[in-house]
Amino acid sequence: MSKLVIPRKTVYRLSLYYRALARLKANKVETVSSAALAKAAGVKPTQLRKDLTYFGQFGTRGLGYNVLALSAQLTEVLGTTHLQPVILVGAGHLGSALLRYPGFAKEGFEVIAAFDADATRKRSRDLGVPVLPMEEIGRILSSQRIKMAILTVPGNVAQEVANGLIEAGVLAILNFAPIILQVPDNVVVNNVDLAIELENLSYFIQ
Amino acid sequence: MSKLVIPRKTVYRLSLYYRALARLKANKVETVSSAALAKAAGVKPTQLRKDLTYFGQFGTRGLGYNVLALSAQLTEVLGTTHLQPVILVGAGHLGSALLRYPGFAKEGFEVIAAFDADATRKRSRDLGVPVLPMEEIGRILSSQRIKMAILTVPGNVAQEVANGLIEAGVLAILNFAPIILQVPDNVVVNNVDLAIELENLSYFIQ
Repeated sequence: MSKLVIPRKTVYRLSLYYRALARLKANKVETVSSAALAKAAGVKPTQLRKDLTYFGQFGTRGLGYNVLALSAQLTEVLGTTHLQPVILVGAGHLGSALLRYPGFAKEGFEVIAAFDADATRKRSRDLGVPVLPMEEIGRILSSQRIKMAILTVPGNVAQEVANGLIEAGVLAILNFAPIILQVPDNVVVNNVDLAIELENLSYFIQ
Repeated sequence: MSKLVIPRKTVYRLSLYYRALARLKANKVETVSSAALAKAAGVKPTQLRKDLTYFGQFGTRGLGYNVLALSAQLTEVLGTTHLQPVILVGAGHLGSALLRYPGFAKEGFEVIAAFDADATRKRSRDLGVPVLPMEEIGRILSSQRIKMAILTVPGNVAQEVANGLIEAGVLAILNFAPIILQVPDNVVVNNVDLAIELENLSYFIQ
């Protein structure tokens, strides 16, 4: 099982299955059919079965999947068995909101520091983590072996900031800046462009 | 040209092309080759050419695309020629940050009202739009013919709130709640699950 052969979209869906299983666990459900799990995750049963075969999980015909076992296996595949440290760069409106977003910690991600071009600016509330000047990025990343960054800087500086992050050892960027980052092949970027999401919806309701 | 035959991923990429063209326009570039436009949008040239054929745009061999003309055509296809009204439901941390996010207005979306279960709660800043009680949703939607909603309520109430929105005429939901919404076939949901995005990155840096 090489991670390179699992398509990116499949990895996304594994996260969906993991969440659906978490709800089943909370409801004390012990086994689940592929049809029921697929429905809970919003995908077709054939898609679910195909996705799970990527890591050798075939279920037991007629019995369905063991909720606890499949959930544990997914955590392992996704690499979220341990708390994953992350930094956030750009503590403006959106960045500050994300720092207060409880979802990250709940899902195993710990934002350990934020960085901002104006680190000493007065902020309306305590953000829960220190806000440091950009010059500190290299030092913090190397001392804490951090490989993931959330990028919430303005579009016109995003590429330059990303270059600095990659130089400092970042391998994965969750990019909220509305530009396409140019990165080396060994670096992964996931883009969250809220305006694009709205534009996409707008197309479908015409 | 029926909108039903354009795949969802293509529509996303049309937004990327539109943004790349906007930057070219700002730089006074008049024509662009498919290779250059594809690079600016972060896709392969063959992908770009294929995507544009969905709405009959083939460019001129050897001359590339006219930046202004292609840009105008994309706006039309995406349905963003006019300002699109949107409501936001759930004015907590994330919802409040989104209300202050300048990207929506810039891209042609106007959040005209926010709704919250606790509309009268004191908020640290002015959000720029009125925050109304949930009971007002139906009245506002029908009087202003709004079809799009941004959903930033907690996961445990998201389905119920979504049901109410759909009943009131909403056809498109940008969902930030970490659950899979069950909706009728005529309703489109785009999910933005920040924890899933991080989890996905986490897989790739293992």
